[in-house]
Order: sequence, then structure tokens, then C-alpha cells
Amino acid sequence: MAHYGFLGLGIMGRAMAANLLKAGHKVTVWNRSVDKCAPLVELGATVGDTPRQITAECEITFAMLADPDAARAVCSGADGVAAGIGGGRGYVDMSTVDDLTAQEIAAAVTAAGGRFLEAPVSGTKKPAEDGTLIILAAGDESLYRDALPAFEIMGKMSPFLGAVGQGARMKLVVNMIMGGMLTAFGEGVALALESGLDGEKLLEVLANGALGNPMFASKGALLLKENYPTSFPLKHMQKDLRLALQLGDRLGQPLVTAATANEIFKRARAAGHADDDIAAVYTAIHEKKCK
Amino acid sequence: MAHYGFLGLGIMGRAMAANLLKAGHKVTVWNRSVDKCAPLVELGATVGDTPRQITAECEITFAMLADPDAARAVCSGADGVAAGIGGGRGYVDMSTVDDLTAQEIAAAVTAAGGRFLEAPVSGTKKPAEDGTLIILAAGDESLYRDALPAFEIMGKMSPFLGAVGQGARMKLVVNMIMGGMLTAFGEGVALALESGLDGEKLLEVLANGALGNPMFASKGALLLKENYPTSFPLKHMQKDLRLALQLGDRLGQPLVTAATANEIFKRARAAGHADDDIAAVYTAIHEKKCK
Amino acid sequence: MAHYGFLGLGIMGRAMAANLLKAGHKVTVWNRSVDKCAPLVELGATVGDTPRQITAECEITFAMLADPDAARAVCSGADGVAAGIGGGRGYVDMSTVDDLTAQEIAAAVTAAGGRFLEAPVSGTKKPAEDGTLIILAAGDESLYRDALPAFEIMGKMSPFLGAVGQGARMKLVVNMIMGGMLTAFGEGVALALESGLDGEKLLEVLANGALGNPMFASKGALLLKENYPTSFPLKHMQKDLRLALQLGDRLGQPLVTAATANEIFKRARAAGHADDDIAAVYTAIHEKKCK
Amino acid sequence: MAHYGFLGLGIMGRAMAANLLKAGHKVTVWNRSVDKCAPLVELGATVGDTPRQITAECEITFAMLADPDAARAVCSGADGVAAGIGGGRGYVDMSTVDDLTAQEIAAAVTAAGGRFLEAPVSGTKKPAEDGTLIILAAGDESLYRDALPAFEIMGKMSPFLGAVGQGARMKLVVNMIMGGMLTAFGEGVALALESGLDGEKLLEVLANGALGNPMFASKGALLLKENYPTSFPLKHMQKDLRLALQLGDRLGQPLVTAATANEIFKRARAAGHADDDIAAVYTAIHEKKCK
Repeated sequence: MAHYGFLGLGIMGRAMAANLLKAGHKVTVWNRSVDKCAPLVELGATVGDTPRQITAECEITFAMLADPDAARAVCSGADGVAAGIGGGRGYVDMSTVDDLTAQEIAAAVTAAGGRFLEAPVSGTKKPAEDGTLIILAAGDESLYRDALPAFEIMGKMSPFLGAVGQGARMKLVVNMIMGGMLTAFGEGVALALESGLDGEKLLEVLANGALGNPMFASKGALLLKENYPTSFPLKHMQKDLRLALQLGDRLGQPLVTAATANEIFKRARAAGHADDDIAAVYTAIHEKKCK
Repeated sequence: MAHYGFLGLGIMGRAMAANLLKAGHKVTVWNRSVDKCAPLVELGATVGDTPRQITAECEITFAMLADPDAARAVCSGADGVAAGIGGGRGYVDMSTVDDLTAQEIAAAVTAAGGRFLEAPVSGTKKPAEDGTLIILAAGDESLYRDALPAFEIMGKMSPFLGAVGQGARMKLVVNMIMGGMLTAFGEGVALALESGLDGEKLLEVLANGALGNPMFASKGALLLKENYPTSFPLKHMQKDLRLALQLGDRLGQPLVTAATANEIFKRARAAGHADDDIAAVYTAIHEKKCK
Repeated sequence: MAHYGFLGLGIMGRAMAANLLKAGHKVTVWNRSVDKCAPLVELGATVGDTPRQITAECEITFAMLADPDAARAVCSGADGVAAGIGGGRGYVDMSTVDDLTAQEIAAAVTAAGGRFLEAPVSGTKKPAEDGTLIILAAGDESLYRDALPAFEIMGKMSPFLGAVGQGARMKLVVNMIMGGMLTAFGEGVALALESGLDGEKLLEVLANGALGNPMFASKGALLLKENYPTSFPLKHMQKDLRLALQLGDRLGQPLVTAATANEIFKRARAAGHADDDIAAVYTAIHEKKCK
Repeated sequence: MAHYGFLGLGIMGRAMAANLLKAGHKVTVWNRSVDKCAPLVELGATVGDTPRQITAECEITFAMLADPDAARAVCSGADGVAAGIGGGRGYVDMSTVDDLTAQEIAAAVTAAGGRFLEAPVSGTKKPAEDGTLIILAAGDESLYRDALPAFEIMGKMSPFLGAVGQGARMKLVVNMIMGGMLTAFGEGVALALESGLDGEKLLEVLANGALGNPMFASKGALLLKENYPTSFPLKHMQKDLRLALQLGDRLGQPLVTAATANEIFKRARAAGHADDDIAAVYTAIHEKKCK
């Protein structure tokens, strides 16, 4: 059994670290507010004092932090990740951060003699708990091989995608496809309802055909109820569309469907749905009509 | 066991009629060129002389014809469907036709004392053979109930959708969503490849996540090979997008994603891919770059 | 001086016929409701009993009718245009009609031994009064040459565009450009105002630069007041965008800007602005924001 | 007569400084490569040693530099603009720079006791020579008033637009409208030619109607010849579209026409037309067709 470090015990991190513990590994955890560590201690975790201490001690330390600022903060400083790492020990940042942040952290870790892997995940709370995340790993390939047993506990697939940045890019590509699928789907639902077709029957027909997918099933139910409890906030999807378009611009790849979807998401955001679920893009598609 | 008529023995019709026979039903078949009847006779079918004779004899006659012109031709004339029908017997047209044609045929059948159902299908050769078509039925609801045992043999689901025309509309909605999904997907594949990501890994990540669907799997393989053997001709998809947009125009439903997808399909069509598979829309998305 | 016939004395026709009279020509007029003839009689016009009588008498008869139905009605029947024409006399239909209607009328006139020209105009009431219309002529070129002196009175330019149908097509092209310019302009005004720039100053900057055009000046004032008294009804522009897109579809010409503009006009139409001026497309661009 | 400084004697700057001299003002000029000063010395200019010396001496110094990097370089350093300015003397940067650069330079000048105005221009070589530029001024309003006599020599209009950054924003808005107009126009030309209409006649009809504008006239001629000598490089227009879209994203203003136009410009850029004139966007609209 390995000894892993785990930094960041929010909704996602807590579930992921718990799965490592349940699989029998030794895990030392850390969180900015220490009270979040308690449930993991119950499962057998040790609590570390600082990120520095943990990366100094553990062969591989995983992190699941809230955003790029948190990821950068935890890495730097006297008590940070980079201060403790060295000797070829590994740091695997599973937070969702942009290219630049990932590259900055990679540079700091490498300069300190550590190995680095970015590994953003696709999937939310439920897959984190079930150990069925999709882990998009990129960076040091030897660390990837060393981390694979842990990835196999936390996720159902964890392809290695190349240099640091490729994990973030794969995630952008997937979310860009999701955004375009969702506006195409929303337009289909709107056209069906305006045609006098039954929404439930449309969902059933879709579910049974070549287009059937879990997202249409889960979001379709929300569209028909026009009720959008947040699982993936609309403003984050719109940000990903913007970043994907910027990537396409840099690479000279035109993306007219994505650009159109982005504008529809922008309308939904501007109309007050920034913090609702991505399904709320439907409000910008199926609007009230006048006679 | 029932006695069914079946008109039209192309790739689809032949497989559907064969399934009725295999289920133990008596089936009288007809096809414009009579040689297509032979394989079904081997399975136990009787050959009818004319559509008229079959609709005069059978409680329910199914038809699977090439296009609106064929559907209209088979219905009218001295030897046509309408000349034989009456006494509340049923005619179920499973061909893909537009609203107007369906309504014309419905009127002729009803005027002759028959009952009518339009029932276009979603699915191609393989689902026809496997009896897993999706059958979109609309028209006379009592006939729907009577035809249901046959639908259950030919398809895996067959919702009743309302008045004649609603079956065709449901099919347009589904194909419109398909068109938008396909351009969103194509852009994702293009962006991934331009980013240096591995196409196979993208397909694998998609297949394992909330967006996974059979179409991405089957068309994705074609995109990566840039090879588009025709299963659903691109020009037919573009026609359905056009018709869906016209329907939206009539109903006052804006459809900006579909309008954008339509223009991309038009570009692929204009560039010589009209008769290739719908997957060839990718040629209009991922174009050769200059430095 | 020539002897012209003139059928249809609405806002446009009255002004055009008046200009022919003021230039010293003899004009015989006709209108479905005869009271509209009075102001022209004051200017020296004779009143004809029927379209038939006028086309039998006059070397060239002009028509300016409300719509395709009116254009067809005036041409056909015992008292219609076609019943009187012959001997190579000319009929110039300046109404805005579709290809098909123009071709039908052309066929009827030609079959009766007359010559035909379609000549839809660009420009509204004011240019009609000022004799500064743009006349888009197509059809019989010898008739074009014969009608030119009259065109030069009614318009400021009157190019000959080819076979019947080309006049209507030129008008569609111009209106399609207008639709796209208007949504681009509306987005610019919205972005300027959201940026805290002064709308009047934007209009002034535009007017003085390479983009300056009469439409931005006249519609810009309406946008800033958010007040849209109808000069060109929005629903007619949206219809022209739809027809232009259908033409492009037939010809294999992708038109993604126009398709996008069309969807924005559709949103404005669906939101209750069908009968407002085309400038009301701005309501679908610059929407109220939430925090 | 005033004593002005002028920094940057490229194509634009040289013409602008010459106009100040011809109007009778005293002008001290500076250019990174001193040989560019000669033609202005012939017109009566004095040559300054450094930006510092000039801003120390002149009541108002104008600058017209190549890009943000040059603008920043000339402002900073021991011999830079900020080192010489003070005592409320004015610095008017007429270069095209982004918000951030303008604000940096503004801060440096203000901190040194000077007054600052950004004043990007709309118009190229010819208007610079003719003194008919459009000058988009923003920043210190008292400096605006003091600079107005010079603006009136160099331009035909020079509105004051508010705080530093508003000049740059006005320019983005204008260029965004230009981009959308150009794709709408290109689609119209393509549809006309595909319809068999004469391109020259379309240009003539447009020029005489409500849409007529200098850009359609000058770019239209290029489109018909499919020849794109660079006056405004396509890649710069695409950059401005990108920046305008980012501004709209920040402000919550959807811009779907501009987003679509941007993708068309991106296609033209990716196809090798980055350095051609903006008119080359037509190559991405009117593509070669197959049968």
C-alpha cells in the first residue's frame, strides 16, 4: 500500500481521498480550514500541518483545489508544495486550472526537483464518490505510471495526454462539444413543443436512438420542467466556450457552431442565469412569444 | 396470427417484412419490380398483384416506399391503395414523406373508407433487420392500437404522436438535433487534433462521459479516417435541416444553432459531398491550413 | 410625348404616374377603387375602364400593384391586361413579386402577343415622389429600351438585368445585404452604449467615415430613441432573408451571416415586432440585462 | 501659432506632422530612425534629440507610433516622454493601442505632472494627407480643448469620448461594424454572381441606394477582381473582432453577427490571407463549387 498526500477537501476532494483510504492506502490530508479533515480522519487519514510537510513526506501528493488562485497559493510560499517537494517525488494537481497556471505550477515543482502532472477531471460529485471520474492526465509520464493505481481507484478512465496543458485542453474540447450539443438539443425541444409534440416522447425517442446520451436524459428533464438546480454553473460553461474559442483563434481553427453556442450562453448569462445550471441556456432559446 | 400486406421491398422494407414473417404472421407482399419479392416468398410470403388487391384483402397494409413521389403513385390510380381500401381497413405508410404528401394520402385513404397512419422510422438497415427501429406513428389512433403488435416486431419503440404530420415533425426535430450535434462534434474533433491531442483518446473520453452516444462512436471513427461511406446521405440531412428551419420560421421559433449547422452542411454539399455520409460535414469544418 | 397606361394608384403608383404627367406625357390610369384616380385627373390623366382597355390602347402600360395576388388578378380575366395586350405592345410590372408570379405574368403577356418587363423598385414614398427610384428591370430588352424615357422620369437609375426573374433576384440580394448590415449595426450600437459611449457620437463617427450610408443615419436615430415607426415592415425583411437563403440553398451558396441575421429578425418578429420598422430588430439585440 | 512636438514619422505620422507645419505651426519632430525627419525639416520642422527633450519643451506633443510596444517604449526610460513631461504639458498618443497600454501610458504621464489624451484615428494614408482623419479623443478634457486646433488641421472630426480607453473602444465598435458589413456584403456579391447577375450592376445599385457607402465602393471593386492589395490587413480586422467580442463578453452583450463574422475572417486568415486586405474575407465566402 502506498502513502499518498491529498490537499483540498471540498465536495470533490473529500470523496476522492475517501476512496483512496477505502482502498487501503495510507493518506495524509490537508485543507485550508482544518475542520474539513475530520470525516477523513474517521476513515483513517492522518492530518498534515502544511502542504510543504506533506510533499516532503509522501511519494505522491494529489490536490483538488477550488480555482487557479487557490492552486497557485497552495503551491508557493514558505509552507507550500514547492518548498517540500524534491527527490523526484510527485505532485498531481487535479484542480481545473488554465494552461498558464498549470505551466507555472509545473515549473515551480520541477525547479524544486519534483515531478508534475496536471490531471483535471470530468465528472461531478456522484462520479467522485463512485470512483468513476474521467481523469485527463498530462505532464511527467513516469509520474503518470506511478499514479495510475490511485487514478484507477478514483476514476474509470485516465488517459495520458502528453505535455502539461493537454489535460486542460482535452477538458475544454469536451466542454465545447457539450455546449454545442446543449443548444442544438434545446432548439430541438423548443421546436418539438412549438409543433405540439410531447416533450417526454421526444426524450424517449432520443434516448432509444443513435443520439441517446446521459446528458440529454438528465438535462432534458430539467428543460421540460423549466427548473435549473445547479450542477454545472452556466457561467463556467460560458467561460469554457470562450476559452475554447480563444484556443481555436490561436490555432487558426474556425469554430462557428461553438461561437454561436457561446453567444446563446452569453444571452442566458446576461439575463440572470449565470449561477443556474447549464440547462438554463434553454431560457435563451425557447422564449415567450407574442401573437 | 394476423394477415398483413406489405408494399415496397427495398433494403428497409424487405427486412421489415421478413421480421413479420419470422414472427409467424401471414404477409402478402408487393413491389414495383417483382423480382424483389423472391427472398420473401422463400420465408413464406404470398405475392399480391397490385396494391389495390392487397389493401382489399388485408386488415392492415404497411408500406415502405422510396420517396414522396413513389408514396403518392402507389396510393393513387386504378390499381392503387385507395382503390382497394375501405371497410375501415388500415393503411400504414412508413415511408419518409413531407407533411403535405402524408396529408394527401391520408385524405385519399379516409375518403375511400379506410383508416390511415403515417409511421416514418428512425434507424437504417441494421435496426430494420434487428427489429429495433424507432417508429414515429401519427394519425388514426384506433389503427395505431391495431398495428401495435406489428410495430413491436419491427421496432423497439413506437410512440403515438397525434394527428397526421406529427410523425414527420418528430423526425425533423430528431434530425435537426443530429445535425447540430454533428457540427459541434466535428469542431471538437478538429480543435483536439489541432491542439495535438489524440483523436482516439477524445472518442474514448467522450464515450465514457455524459455525452457518450452511438453516433459519436460510429461517425467519430469515420472522421478520424476522413473516409465517409454513405449510410445517411449528407444532402438528405441538409434537406431536413432546411425543412426544420422552415417549420421554425412558420412557428416563430428562432433556431440559430440549426441555421449555422445548415450553412456548414451546405458548404460540404457545395464542395462535392452531397452523396457522401453526413459525417463528411467534417470536411467543411477541419480544412487544410496555410502557414 | 408618349401615351402611357398606369395601373395601380397606391402611395407609390400615384407618385410615379404623377411624375409621368408632370413630364408632359399623356397617361391613362386605372385603379381598383376608382376614387384614387381623382388627383391624377387633376394633373391631366384620363381614366380607363379596365386594364384590358388600357393595354389595348397604350404603347406601354406600367403597373404598381400591392402584392403577387393583385398582380396576377389584374393580368388575368376577361378585363385583364393579357386580354387587351397584343401587337407587340408593352407591359411593365413594377410591383414586388416573386419569380414564379413574374414568370406566370410574363408567359400570359407573351402568349397574347405582348412584350413583358419586370421592374421592381428599390426605394419608398419619398424617392417615388422625387423621381429617384432605383428600377430593377429584366425581361424583354427591346421593351426596356422603349420604356427607358419613362424610367428616367420615375427613377435615378434603371439597369437592365437579364431574363425575367433577375430583377426580383437583384432586389433580394440588396435586401439580404441590408438585413446583415442592420444586425451588424445594431450590435455596434448596443456595444457602444454598454461601453458607456455616446450613441449620437457613434452615429456621427460612422457618418463621416468609410462606412457612412443613408440607412445608418435614418435607422440609427430610431435605434437611439427605441422607437420604430414603420417605413419597411420587419416581417417583409425577414421574408426576404428567408427567400434569399432559399435561393442560396438552391444555388449551393452558403450564407452564414445572412442565416444568422435571419434568426435575429425571426426573434424580433416572434417578440411582437412583425409590423414595426426593420429597425426594431434592435430589440432582439440590445436586451435588458440582469445583474 | 503653437509649438507642437511630434513623435513617430511613419506613413501616417509624416503626413499629419506635415499638415501642422503647412498650417503655420512650429513643430519639433522625432523618429527612431532619424532619416525619416528630412522631408519634414524641408517643410520647416526642427529635429529633437529625444522624446524627453520634446515633451520638456513643447506645450503639446503628439505621437503616432507603430504598435503598443513602440508606444510603451517611447514613453518610458531616461529619454522617454514621461521623463520630460510635467508642468501640465500635454501628451496626445494617436497610435492604435489597447486599453491597458493606453492606461499605463496615461498613468506614467499623469504621475510625472503631465496631461494625457488617447486619440486613435480612423482613416489611412489618404485621409492623413488630406487632413480628413476621424480622431477619437479620450482622457483629459482640458488637454482635448487645447489640442482641438491641431485636431482640426489633421482631421475632419474629433469628438471627445470620455475617460482614457473610450477612444480605443469607439474604434473597436466601428471596426466590428465594418467586419459584419463586409461579410454581409461579400455574401451578397456571391449570391448575385451565382444568380447570374452582373457584379458591376450590383455595385451601382448599392451605390445609388440607402446602403451606399465608400467601403462597398472601394472593396467591391476588389471583390469582383478577386485581387486584394493590402490597405487594412485582414489579420488586424480579425484581431479587432476578437477584442470586440471579448469586450461584449465582459459587458454581457451578445454579438452573434460579429461572432459569425469573426469565424469567417478566421477561416480566411487560416487559409493564407492574414496579410491580404480585409476584402480577402470574400475568399472564405465565395468558394469554388463542385457539381
